[in-house]
Order: sequence, then C-alpha cells, then structure tokens
Amino acid sequence: MSLKLTILGCHSATPRSFAFPTSQFLEINNRYFLIDCGEGTQMQLRKHKIKFSKIKHIFISHLHGDHFYGLIGLISTFGLLNRQTELHIYAPKGIKEIILLLLNISHSRKFFPIEFHEIESKNSEIIFEDKNVIVHTIPLKHRIYTNGFLFTEKPKEKKLNIKEIEKYPEIEICDYHNLKKGKDFIKENGKIIKNNTLTFEPAKPLSYAFCSDTAYFPKIVPLIKNVDLLYHETTFLEDNHELAKTTQHSTALQAAKIAQKAEVKKLLIGHYSGRYKNRDDFLQEAQTVFKKTELSFEGKEIIIEN
Amino acid sequence: MSLKLTILGCHSATPRSFAFPTSQFLEINNRYFLIDCGEGTQMQLRKHKIKFSKIKHIFISHLHGDHFYGLIGLISTFGLLNRQTELHIYAPKGIKEIILLLLNISHSRKFFPIEFHEIESKNSEIIFEDKNVIVHTIPLKHRIYTNGFLFTEKPKEKKLNIKEIEKYPEIEICDYHNLKKGKDFIKENGKIIKNNTLTFEPAKPLSYAFCSDTAYFPKIVPLIKNVDLLYHETTFLEDNHELAKTTQHSTALQAAKIAQKAEVKKLLIGHYSGRYKNRDDFLQEAQTVFKKTELSFEGKEIIIEN
Repeated sequence: MSLKLTILGCHSATPRSFAFPTSQFLEINNRYFLIDCGEGTQMQLRKHKIKFSKIKHIFISHLHGDHFYGLIGLISTFGLLNRQTELHIYAPKGIKEIILLLLNISHSRKFFPIEFHEIESKNSEIIFEDKNVIVHTIPLKHRIYTNGFLFTEKPKEKKLNIKEIEKYPEIEICDYHNLKKGKDFIKENGKIIKNNTLTFEPAKPLSYAFCSDTAYFPKIVPLIKNVDLLYHETTFLEDNHELAKTTQHSTALQAAKIAQKAEVKKLLIGHYSGRYKNRDDFLQEAQTVFKKTELSFEGKEIIIEN
Repeated sequence: MSLKLTILGCHSATPRSFAFPTSQFLEINNRYFLIDCGEGTQMQLRKHKIKFSKIKHIFISHLHGDHFYGLIGLISTFGLLNRQTELHIYAPKGIKEIILLLLNISHSRKFFPIEFHEIESKNSEIIFEDKNVIVHTIPLKHRIYTNGFLFTEKPKEKKLNIKEIEKYPEIEICDYHNLKKGKDFIKENGKIIKNNTLTFEPAKPLSYAFCSDTAYFPKIVPLIKNVDLLYHETTFLEDNHELAKTTQHSTALQAAKIAQKAEVKKLLIGHYSGRYKNRDDFLQEAQTVFKKTELSFEGKEIIIEN
C-alpha cells in the first residue's frame, strides 16, 4: 500500500509563470485522482510527466477561479487528443452548466463521456467508492460552498502465513479465501484454529485529507482524525490574522492547530498569498505548534508507504 | 509612429509548459491591444513584464479554447488586483454569457466595469476607433465564426516646415492648425501659397493584420493589402494539405501565398501544430513563396517604425 502526492500548483489567487494555482495529483492504492485544477494545470501535468490517461476522476473543491479555471482547457485537450475514456468530475453544483456552455460555444464534438457528480450537501458524504479507495467530502468554511476531500484506502484482506498453514494438511487452497477474510479454521473434529495464528494483519489503510480553501474550522477535526497526510491551506501568516478571517482563509498557525487537534501524521501546507516573499516563514510559524509540517512547492512529491 | 508586437503564445490547440496558445500584445500609436487570450496568458504577460494596467481592450478572434480560455483568469486577476478601469472585450457573440456565468458562479463582486462588444457580422466592420487607431474586423474562414483584426494608425497631421513658414511674416501661429490640416495659405492680396511648400508629409500610417484561425481564404486579400505586418496562421505544412482543408487551417505555403497576393511588407507565421518538431520547416516552406517571412516564438518582439 502506498500513497504518492504530486503538487502541480500551490499558489493562491493570481497565477504567475513561476507560481501555479492549486492542483494536485494523488496516487493511492492504484487509483489516481486530480484534485483542483487551476489555470495551467494541463501544462503542469505535462511538465511533471503525468499521463493524461491516468486522469479519470477530477475533484474540485470550490468554484473560485484559482481552483478550476484550468478544467475546461484540460477537458478540451482530452478531446483534441481523441480521448474515449469516461471522465468523472466531482464538483459543486454549477460546474456542469459551465463546462457544457463552454463546450457548446466552441461547437465541440462530444468527444468522450463526462459524468458530472455535482455536490451540494452541507454534510460529509461518500462521493467515490470502489474496492480500493473511498472518498468522503470534508465540508469547509469559505466565502462560497467548498469541500475538502478525504481519500482513504479500503482495508485489505489479511495475508496468509503459509509457513503456519502448511502445518495443517487439512487446510486446502479453497479455504484461503475465508482465512483472508479473517475467519477461523474449523477442523473436522470441531477443533478451532484461530485465524490470527494462520494470517498476518494487513497494512493499515493510508489516508489523505485535502483541505482548501477554508477559514480556521475545527469542526473538520473528527473527519480528518489521524490521517497520514493532511494538506491544509495557509494563505496567510498570523500578521494577517484579521484578513484571514475576513477572506475566510487560514494562517499557518491555524493550519498547525488543526493538524495538532486531529493528531495527523504529517501536515503539508500551501496556497500561499502572493504578498509573502519567503515561504519559510509559513513553515516556521506552523512548526511552533506542529513540528511535522512540510512546505508545498511546485513539483514536490510526497510518498507514504506502510 | 511605431508599432510593437509581442508574441505571448503561438502554439495551436494543446498548450504545454514550453508552448503557450495564441496571445499577442500590440502597441500601436500609443494604444495597447491584447489579441486572443489562450490559457496561461496572464502568466505570459507577467513573464514579459507587460503591465496589466495597459490592457483596456481585448480582441478575441473566435471561441475555440486555445484562443480564449485564459480570458476569465485574466479578468478574475484584474478583479483581485482591485482594477477600477473599464475593460472592453471585442469577441464573437456568446462571450458575455460565458464571462458573466463564470463571474456569477464564483460570487465575484463586480470589481470593475466590463463592456462587451459582441461581433456577429459576416462583413468587415469597424469595431474600435479613436484619434490614434482604427480597428476593422477581417472575417475569416474557420469551423466556427472567426474574425481577424486589422489595426491601422490614423493619418497624422502634416508637419510644419518652420524654416519656409518664417519667410512669410503674415503667417501667424493661429494659421498653423489649417496648415497641418493641409490647407493652402491665402495672403490678403489673394495670392495663394501652396500647402506643400509650407509643410512636410506625415509619416505613412502603420498597419498590422492578425489572421488566425483560418483556412486558405484569398477573399481577405483586399482587406489586408499592403499592411506593414501580417500575422497569418500556419498550423500545418503542405504535407498535411488535406488535414488543413478538413480542419480549416492553413499551411505555411498558403499563408505565404496570401502575403504575396496582398503585397504585405512582412509576414509573421505561427499557430504551429504540435505534430511538427522543427519550426524551421515552416519558415522554409513559406519562404519558397514569400521571402520576408519570420517565425513567431514565445517572447518574440517585432518593432516597426517609420
């Protein structure tokens, strides 16, 4: 089991040639997810050699431009490249109208199927689930309707302890399925061989929580408790505490407090305001509260294995 | 009088980190115009140090993504930077609905006034005029409604030949206005002093024609006759003559033929398909017909003075 996150952009609001707005590519338990899609995301995907064919599910946190203005260009490029595979878009209500209007105005052929999963609930809900991964929304607090996303690996089956199993000739291959599911083995004479003597525990499922944009919002803590990696926005430093409040963004200190309360394994911060020249100031401020903090930067990769 | 064109992007269809889609910044007779606005244009403007405050008029040729997907991001950034100045957008009908929908969905405050000049005529028409510059549309032939744009300096007043004027003490300063306008000077005794003995001809007005996207379309020749600079798309080479026809684009040879027929002073080519690795092939093909051809590349500046 492993999780790999690539930061395609982590700047806030106004993109620059050296600072792309929010977009991340997540690989978790053999599934791939694009999270937010600011202007220029398709260029960043190419730059970081992420194959377009891997992108089947795109999650958009909210409909502020710096989080989705790259989406239509990416879809348009998929079309020009003759994509056939279905694309799933998980985004606040409104996204479908926008994308369809833009495609229609260009007289675009409907190149490939697009499935819109419009989100409008104020409560956390499951928006994606397959045998490998489950995705919950994390309702956030921002000027417009916004969700973070919690990506969690599905628990895997137990691993067989073949060396131990071979001591019992009566256990046949057709019994392995039940052993992996955690069932004990019952011999013909009724004697029970406990499952945990025949199997190893599976690796603990990994989890990643993406939380941007949001004001300081401790209500999310139970949802992101103990995640292996938390991305939390830090648009400002504490010197702009009031501005953060007004614009419903977070300071580095506030992000660290959330990480601390949720007892996450690692905090990754980003979505920096252009007014700050030195990103290390964000790291220093956050680390006063939560040591295991890292800075996002374009092209950064975080790999977590267990 | 002078004309300066900066190429912000000249790639076709699918942008890459090293190849931005169409956008150009034109400075002509102290007026500034942004022409097309593909994804990433705002990054390119910053990179090439073009002040956002200079952008008051944006011309969009057509509503294919690689020519306007950067517009909403640019407008959004103007808003975030607290722009107050009015912005004029000249684009095919439909642009207003798109921009307003995108601004509304973000709950954007109406930061600054935007005046939409929607174009729908099939004939050339004047869409901008002030005392310095006049802009005509150049109806093109493409898969969707498309216009090129002809930017022409307004004729300037004649220049006074002070040395000659001083020979006639009866010519007073209040007469200068009429002399600049080209009127003869009539002495009290009725004798006429010809205007051309008292003035110099003004510099010939410069002109720039932007033509993209378009199939080979000789109907435009009378509109762009003798322009100082013609930008004409060259998506393909002749090896893809048929594909050019199907997709309603031009080959380098066809662009050169248009330049030759219109007897333009200089041809600038661009809008290259990603299938070609070597841009020099475009130059070579065009120059078999029209020697005074130059290649566009990101960051290229062309200055024409007279």
